[in-house]
Amino acid sequence: MPVNYATPAADQLLPVAGIRLGVAAAEIRKKNHRDLTLLALDAGCTVAGVFTSNRFCAAPVQLCRQHLAGSGEIRALVINTGNANAGTGEPGCRAAQATCDAVAGLFGVAAEQVLPFSTGVILEPLPVERLIAGLPAAQADLRGDNWHAAAHAIMTTDTVAKAASRSLVSNGRKVVITGISKGAGMIKPNMATMLGFLATDAGIAQPLLDRLVKEAADASFNCITVDGDTSTNDSFVMIASGQSGVSFASEGDAGWAEFKAAIIAVAIELAQAIVRDGEGATKFITVAVEGGKNVEECRQVGYAIGHSPLVKTAFFASDPNLGRILAAIGYAGIADLDVDAVRVWLDDVLVAEAGGRAATYREEDGARVMAGAEITVRVNLGRGPAAAQVYTCDLSYDYVKINADYRS
Amino acid sequence: MPVNYATPAADQLLPVAGIRLGVAAAEIRKKNHRDLTLLALDAGCTVAGVFTSNRFCAAPVQLCRQHLAGSGEIRALVINTGNANAGTGEPGCRAAQATCDAVAGLFGVAAEQVLPFSTGVILEPLPVERLIAGLPAAQADLRGDNWHAAAHAIMTTDTVAKAASRSLVSNGRKVVITGISKGAGMIKPNMATMLGFLATDAGIAQPLLDRLVKEAADASFNCITVDGDTSTNDSFVMIASGQSGVSFASEGDAGWAEFKAAIIAVAIELAQAIVRDGEGATKFITVAVEGGKNVEECRQVGYAIGHSPLVKTAFFASDPNLGRILAAIGYAGIADLDVDAVRVWLDDVLVAEAGGRAATYREEDGARVMAGAEITVRVNLGRGPAAAQVYTCDLSYDYVKINADYRS
Repeated sequence: MPVNYATPAADQLLPVAGIRLGVAAAEIRKKNHRDLTLLALDAGCTVAGVFTSNRFCAAPVQLCRQHLAGSGEIRALVINTGNANAGTGEPGCRAAQATCDAVAGLFGVAAEQVLPFSTGVILEPLPVERLIAGLPAAQADLRGDNWHAAAHAIMTTDTVAKAASRSLVSNGRKVVITGISKGAGMIKPNMATMLGFLATDAGIAQPLLDRLVKEAADASFNCITVDGDTSTNDSFVMIASGQSGVSFASEGDAGWAEFKAAIIAVAIELAQAIVRDGEGATKFITVAVEGGKNVEECRQVGYAIGHSPLVKTAFFASDPNLGRILAAIGYAGIADLDVDAVRVWLDDVLVAEAGGRAATYREEDGARVMAGAEITVRVNLGRGPAAAQVYTCDLSYDYVKINADYRS
Repeated sequence: MPVNYATPAADQLLPVAGIRLGVAAAEIRKKNHRDLTLLALDAGCTVAGVFTSNRFCAAPVQLCRQHLAGSGEIRALVINTGNANAGTGEPGCRAAQATCDAVAGLFGVAAEQVLPFSTGVILEPLPVERLIAGLPAAQADLRGDNWHAAAHAIMTTDTVAKAASRSLVSNGRKVVITGISKGAGMIKPNMATMLGFLATDAGIAQPLLDRLVKEAADASFNCITVDGDTSTNDSFVMIASGQSGVSFASEGDAGWAEFKAAIIAVAIELAQAIVRDGEGATKFITVAVEGGKNVEECRQVGYAIGHSPLVKTAFFASDPNLGRILAAIGYAGIADLDVDAVRVWLDDVLVAEAGGRAATYREEDGARVMAGAEITVRVNLGRGPAAAQVYTCDLSYDYVKINADYRS
């Protein structure tokens, strides 16, 4: 059960003009299971993506990078679950290429205009013939109002489908932003990966979109951790169709700030949904680090706290175990950190200052905060103006159970 | 229950001429519990130590660093369990100083000749009066053959006492090396920390000992991980009394190589005992990384594997989940790693090469290795001559249970 998250209803996911989605059951791993998704993009879309930094990145990730770097306009995305096509060597590359070739043939475009995504078991050959055989059914299913079905079709070990949608008025016109994501850990290499897709009917010039996708990823998918592992297949792609009639060419354009804020809010909602559905999660934790010299050191501290198994088990136990949080701050790697300047709060409760427990702290106040399902750990490093947030969940018996039992 | 480890019997722990140990029940946290240990060093010993890199280091760690950097000869060590005297601010510093003052008074030496160590609950004031009141009883108990009692008196959540001892003949004389350690995680900030003490009756010149303690720590206590957390109190101290009549002044001395190897072997035994007794451990895992450009990158890969909750839960499940290991290698941070050159073995079974599963690999071979309690993951990075090892354990339900239930 996710922490305070439910999939929006189908009619809450607004269609994005210029983008149609179709799903099909290709039986890649399971029978009678929708595991294949197509996104068809009208001509004129701009597309940008960010991908895993894992050196063992999957074959489809390699092709995505090539195709986005090429000169061809992206016209289709193809996503399969059930097999990650990762750790599959040269045959895996040929399978990803064959997938793009097949989609290109159906759409009458070049293979370089197709982006492939795979998620699922790794180290096993992709059953590419079954995938290709399923494509016509997915193509026949293409509709603008099919985001809900697509959000379900990209799930693997997710317990809920993840989607977010909103509209805003920009420059006098209505603009839509809709996205879907999947993942229940930063990595689960057997039924792997985090994927995120976000589309808007605003037009965004390619250089601007290239910067936006990185900025949005840094504020959302790059701020989450369930278990500290980084997948072989992580991908986040943003599509801008321009069909709303609103378009942006540069950061100085009227309405850009509001529009960008909305894009980032949707990306954060999609990213947080992954943590809320994190393996075994019973709590959703925001680690807000401020007062750093730069964002990087704030993120270091945020991840040290967010990754610590000791901190995460304390959250599971609803135990205000402050020492574990202080210790994580201390080993986060800031060599010249003045621990006497560090202050730590659990929600609104000051718990630590001057190198130790705050004089005003009472255990029952800490226990009250820890009993909740949504908790903010706020850390002020007392050394500068920078801030960053990390989103994480607790570490429970079920995390061990899910990951220990997974393949059996 | 530790993995393949039992405390040596009392008579297997050889006295080290020049060093006497005494223990007492000071009731620092529990009644009728031996929680106070004294080591008395004859004049003429050299002493060196390495300490935690955690910025929230404990007050006694700060004093140890000062006293070792001073000009006075170290004549006593005082160790208490039940309270880590960490996260205690200025009062904690005064308590550690008062402890040294009291020991110095009993021994007729200066406070700068005493090294203090604390382990236990953090963020709580050290009951320094009870500690000081217990010192005379510990002093009265001082004996050369008391290592077994000391190994027990420094335990916190350890399920077994940890000690190792051996003798060798060096330059025609018998030399003894005996050590004790404690810890069941890299950090447990409530009943915190890893401590290690190793003594020999060989003489070792101070500059040589300073280098040796670092080298031995790097080969032992700095190669272990249970949960990736680094304690506020970690300390490893080496004492050389010289009373065997054998002494070493430089690396070129006759017998130094064999003696150093014996010291490092004892340090590794003590360090591995901590992992074998790791919280919830059911398996002992050696991650041996070779073929790196330098030791640092080998350690990075070793720790990425050794820290991954997904890899560790797979070991708990005896599941040869190769993808998780490959993924950890991939995100270990070697930006120019050629994954096609990487080879991975589980014990003697080649499991991965050329970017994917080895053609010769059979699941039953992997399963056979994973069923054991001692497993070596060998990784060849295929890019250089360097190698490093990391020792870790699996991640089980009991780890979560121990750390979630700890304070309740």
